[in-house]
Amino acid sequence: MGKLLPYRKDLPYSYTPGVFPSLSLLSSRPSCARRLLLHSEATETEGIDRLRVRCESLGIRIEPADRILRTVSRKENCYAALVFDKYDCTLSDDTPHIVLHQPSDRGNLGTILRTCLGFGFHDVAIIQPACDVFDPRTVRASMGSLFSLNVRMYDTFDAYRAEHASHALYPFMLTGSIGLQDAIEHIPARYALVFGNEATGLPANFASLGQAVCIAHSDAIDSLNLSIAVAIAAHAFANADKQEAL
Amino acid sequence: MGKLLPYRKDLPYSYTPGVFPSLSLLSSRPSCARRLLLHSEATETEGIDRLRVRCESLGIRIEPADRILRTVSRKENCYAALVFDKYDCTLSDDTPHIVLHQPSDRGNLGTILRTCLGFGFHDVAIIQPACDVFDPRTVRASMGSLFSLNVRMYDTFDAYRAEHASHALYPFMLTGSIGLQDAIEHIPARYALVFGNEATGLPANFASLGQAVCIAHSDAIDSLNLSIAVAIAAHAFANADKQEAL
Repeated sequence: MGKLLPYRKDLPYSYTPGVFPSLSLLSSRPSCARRLLLHSEATETEGIDRLRVRCESLGIRIEPADRILRTVSRKENCYAALVFDKYDCTLSDDTPHIVLHQPSDRGNLGTILRTCLGFGFHDVAIIQPACDVFDPRTVRASMGSLFSLNVRMYDTFDAYRAEHASHALYPFMLTGSIGLQDAIEHIPARYALVFGNEATGLPANFASLGQAVCIAHSDAIDSLNLSIAVAIAAHAFANADKQEAL
Repeated sequence: MGKLLPYRKDLPYSYTPGVFPSLSLLSSRPSCARRLLLHSEATETEGIDRLRVRCESLGIRIEPADRILRTVSRKENCYAALVFDKYDCTLSDDTPHIVLHQPSDRGNLGTILRTCLGFGFHDVAIIQPACDVFDPRTVRASMGSLFSLNVRMYDTFDAYRAEHASHALYPFMLTGSIGLQDAIEHIPARYALVFGNEATGLPANFASLGQAVCIAHSDAIDSLNLSIAVAIAAHAFANADKQEAL
């Protein structure tokens, strides 16, 4: 691994800024963890102590690294981070998917991943070009949820479709022909909720790929924030049975 | 007004970074607009042109201000911004409220305001200490929704309660005794959805102030992001009639 570099997308490794994302990595993907970086001013909080103990039991090297920790988290002081190897995932073909078409905001993406995990969506497809799922800012915003999910990058939507042809598609579009409440009345076993880019949404042709859905909102706003749209949709689909039982 | 200063919370004015929030200000609160700042490299896009025309018709001075525009938006190039006077609002007593108890993240707050407007919640109470609702980062994240809402700051929750004593309170808490689906079965005419700080949530005593509600999520995450929780709750309450009709 040699000398650690400030994060760049083309590096084969990345960083988990903070105690919580670092603990998540150690419980979900311990074999990817390489080194624990601690700031020389890190106080012995309970979290830091747990990190130390787990790294020692896993045989992960612990080292001071004030300089690189400063570059990992530009916003706040960061007292601990794990260096981890990037890894590939495959998506289960038997579970619902969340598909993000060309998302561009790292913080938004992290929030979306956290929400997906919270509502039981463990398989997330990301269609390129897209922001970097391993960027420390994404990792931080996901609160480490990234490591509990299967997130797979695809060069094109067709490449995703070639791997998972039988999922019923629900593209979320302002022009969707049905509302969310109607969409969740009958949900097939395999389905994918598909969302477009923050600024441009999904290309118009996605409407013909499945049942396009619109989350109704007032005309006073242009659109919902992407992370908000994903959350409302994921929550509704995850709780559809309960709603039918009303 | 004199020489414009980089934004600080204690200034009596603020800035709307970007064309869209600036147009929102001009349509919702034109009397607060003071000057239109344009970057010398601003190209004559349709948006900039609309801003110019509206400011001219309202008699708002237009001036080049490259230096201050750089400080207004540190993230991206900002080619246009309005200077506006901060203003006070009062909340309607006849409408549902969203109450944010000590929110601390400006971007999150902006996203929340945009969502509130999208789901028809026009009255938002913010309990101090809280992040600055007039900060350009909040304005930007709200996409200008701030200006279409009544947002009122309160020193304490009791001060809010003193003004609006008859709203039924729904504090959103991880320990809430009922789920969201049950909460929306019977909704009174006047109600307030109450949310705590991003990191700490609501103080435990809020559970006794009304019907505490929990948005169920898996144990794999600690909590939902605040803007996500507000969105799911606001969407559910705004669409409760439709759900009952299922």
